[in-house]
Amino acid sequence: MGEGFGPWTIGDGVDAQLMPLISSANVATGFHAGDPSTMRRTVEMAAALGVGVGAHPGFRDLVGFGRRHMHVGVDELVNDMLYQLGALREIAALDGVKLQHIKPHGALYMHVAQDEALARALVEALRKVDPQLFLFCMGGSVVHRLAQAAGQPVVREFYADRDYGSNGFIVFTRRVSALDPKAVAQKVLLACEQGVVKTVDGQTVAIEFDSVCIHSDTPGALALVQATRQLLDDRGVQVVGVNQLPLR
Amino acid sequence: MGEGFGPWTIGDGVDAQLMPLISSANVATGFHAGDPSTMRRTVEMAAALGVGVGAHPGFRDLVGFGRRHMHVGVDELVNDMLYQLGALREIAALDGVKLQHIKPHGALYMHVAQDEALARALVEALRKVDPQLFLFCMGGSVVHRLAQAAGQPVVREFYADRDYGSNGFIVFTRRVSALDPKAVAQKVLLACEQGVVKTVDGQTVAIEFDSVCIHSDTPGALALVQATRQLLDDRGVQVVGVNQLPLR
Amino acid sequence: MGEGFGPWTIGDGVDAQLMPLISSANVATGFHAGDPSTMRRTVEMAAALGVGVGAHPGFRDLVGFGRRHMHVGVDELVNDMLYQLGALREIAALDGVKLQHIKPHGALYMHVAQDEALARALVEALRKVDPQLFLFCMGGSVVHRLAQAAGQPVVREFYADRDYGSNGFIVFTRRVSALDPKAVAQKVLLACEQGVVKTVDGQTVAIEFDSVCIHSDTPGALALVQATRQLLDDRGVQVVGVNQLPLR
Amino acid sequence: MGEGFGPWTIGDGVDAQLMPLISSANVATGFHAGDPSTMRRTVEMAAALGVGVGAHPGFRDLVGFGRRHMHVGVDELVNDMLYQLGALREIAALDGVKLQHIKPHGALYMHVAQDEALARALVEALRKVDPQLFLFCMGGSVVHRLAQAAGQPVVREFYADRDYGSNGFIVFTRRVSALDPKAVAQKVLLACEQGVVKTVDGQTVAIEFDSVCIHSDTPGALALVQATRQLLDDRGVQVVGVNQLPLR
Repeated sequence: MGEGFGPWTIGDGVDAQLMPLISSANVATGFHAGDPSTMRRTVEMAAALGVGVGAHPGFRDLVGFGRRHMHVGVDELVNDMLYQLGALREIAALDGVKLQHIKPHGALYMHVAQDEALARALVEALRKVDPQLFLFCMGGSVVHRLAQAAGQPVVREFYADRDYGSNGFIVFTRRVSALDPKAVAQKVLLACEQGVVKTVDGQTVAIEFDSVCIHSDTPGALALVQATRQLLDDRGVQVVGVNQLPLR
Repeated sequence: MGEGFGPWTIGDGVDAQLMPLISSANVATGFHAGDPSTMRRTVEMAAALGVGVGAHPGFRDLVGFGRRHMHVGVDELVNDMLYQLGALREIAALDGVKLQHIKPHGALYMHVAQDEALARALVEALRKVDPQLFLFCMGGSVVHRLAQAAGQPVVREFYADRDYGSNGFIVFTRRVSALDPKAVAQKVLLACEQGVVKTVDGQTVAIEFDSVCIHSDTPGALALVQATRQLLDDRGVQVVGVNQLPLR
Repeated sequence: MGEGFGPWTIGDGVDAQLMPLISSANVATGFHAGDPSTMRRTVEMAAALGVGVGAHPGFRDLVGFGRRHMHVGVDELVNDMLYQLGALREIAALDGVKLQHIKPHGALYMHVAQDEALARALVEALRKVDPQLFLFCMGGSVVHRLAQAAGQPVVREFYADRDYGSNGFIVFTRRVSALDPKAVAQKVLLACEQGVVKTVDGQTVAIEFDSVCIHSDTPGALALVQATRQLLDDRGVQVVGVNQLPLR
Repeated sequence: MGEGFGPWTIGDGVDAQLMPLISSANVATGFHAGDPSTMRRTVEMAAALGVGVGAHPGFRDLVGFGRRHMHVGVDELVNDMLYQLGALREIAALDGVKLQHIKPHGALYMHVAQDEALARALVEALRKVDPQLFLFCMGGSVVHRLAQAAGQPVVREFYADRDYGSNGFIVFTRRVSALDPKAVAQKVLLACEQGVVKTVDGQTVAIEFDSVCIHSDTPGALALVQATRQLLDDRGVQVVGVNQLPLR
């Protein structure tokens, strides 16, 4: 959420309509998107609806929207993430909102998931600055394992709008057509009820997760979230805040 | 301090030599200068020497170094300052350092000193996010008055490397020659001992202050600080942290 | 046109639909909006339809979209405009497109219209780098007068989506409701046929212009342009390129 | 040259002293360093001394000084390079200076040297916008071969302040101590007179080049250039502009 910048909004500009349908919001913190005033508005929207607020720090790459890898050293990346985390924390404090979580964005999310030195340094930093802050991550990733070992609370994510490979990780495919809301909703329901996901090569693999992620900049994001939330509600799958989750 | 950016350092690059001579450091927070890794190094230098750390937020204008006014609205400026304040606060927290103060930078400092709407909004925000944070400002300025009335602790500054007018405020003159360290030191001593300053038109006016500011990007800054500190020490004027000041 | 940046597009994102309806396009050149790849796509769209391409340099203020004044010196502003002009010129050259004009953007447009030192310096620079380049400006403004005196070809603009005051200049009003396409089209027709415009205080004043400007980031811009172009076509008012205009 | 940004200068800030000692200057063009006004000053310094001016486009990464690779697509990189090339060309035109060459900077230089798709796209673009513009590159690199095949004039560089491996290419080593001016000068003389360079593993390999590069941000750059130029002059090795070189 809040992935605009100055005069610009991202994708369909549907943050306000999405907010009532979700329980946690990742708020862009200025390096890949987001500016202080957009952050403020987004926090206030979330707070008004009781949505948990998390920092969504990215690579310093506005024009690339943080989607591409940059060969930046571990120390600099950790400092960059702390900078962005603190920036949002202060803005949230103005409205009396306490940050719930942190989730690196885009290429930085993938880098944290795979690079052990970075993952370790990030976890160590979080242990020092906020040992209660939830770290959103891919289940089974390097950072998930290290955070868990260190005692930092984690939230494992399921990606409703991404494809999965037979190794249980998401695969990046350049999508040409828009996603079907019904199919996405069914995929999430299947994952919630049976703990499995269909892979790109037709297999069914087990998947463990605590949270379902849908990207607000996916074309048609609002319809995807609406259909998913509706189906979960209809089938009695309760959406709760991360503080109410039975976390591992 | 920390007014470099990426590969660049400012002026003579003497932060490390200045740090042992001062009691409070204003750390640039990324908008007019400073990047997260420079901030981290600067905080660690200050912390190692017991120097109080403050956020030095500026206009979003790297190329202009925050020295020129931009017609930005009050809400955006307050959000920008909170963003920068929180960014430094988080980075400081990593080293267990608590922020001592905030001091807007350059053109933003002057704007806060003069614009009542901005000064009021800044003070209100500080009351909410950190009612103990010292606000460094010009004595007698709009923001000084409002902060004092609201109960936010203030520190009034004396500018060793700027000229004063007969109204007791600093005047901006494009300087052609470097400052003389002895003259600057004498000026500070006179202000400390007798509470007066000589103005550009030859008068002597009363001046009240709690802190002496010397800009690290003033050419020859190190010599100015060395001479000043030496003379104060020689004459028994004790330099203490703001927490030990008898503030009004 | 081309006023997106990286992942973002401005307003309704209707550049492709607008392009067939216009004869000159102002292409954002990176400081207030626009990035090299967006510039390239915009130039190619324009070239394919025979639309004249112009550089639209702005203040270096992405987050503020160049809409607010910055106190930047004359020399720096001229260098900034040349930088942006050349950047677009080179990108256009790749597709064999020759630049037709330059039009400063937003707050910089107003600054050039009013500040004699800046206007003079810009005109002098244009005389040196491209004495054939049309300068789009407000009729009767300082820069119009100076350009004309120096022999730089000028194009005076009429603002279809801005209000006029009784002095014949546009007035800035924060608009709450969307503009009515029919009213805008009638306003342009009246100006074209009778050389007059109704002012905000109900008067009718004479107006001289060579070109009609509609901002692509005005909400509902496409409808405004469609209605205007349709009415002009219906009434036999011919829209031609600036090279075919009988310029003064 | 011109690798400052706004208030900052790089390294020892010795551009003015270096300029009389060289025949070609690579001028930073705003993405990794350099701003329009710094570009203007640098061009004017070069022009006054008859030094050939070239564009030095880099990755869009100010904080990293363009020294680290970013995973950016070919089309975007070519557009970014054209943008920067044109920006400098226009600023140079103001002083009647014609650009002599282009040399990608830092990580982008290495990327162009190795990535065939990028090298091909860059050469194709140069063929269109300026088929006379010299392309500075590493002899034997992909871009060297492609440029030569396409007919774009090339200048092969010898790196005085970098180490060479036994494959004849430069190797990147994190240097701890400053370079010895005499050793650097001898290395250049040996390369000029005998066409060989000593490698990091003690071998002597043949090297072909047309130009000697010394980085102005190498610590002690001025002494390196002075010693090198002095020795070349003493030994009768003539330094000429690229237009007087017998190029292949």
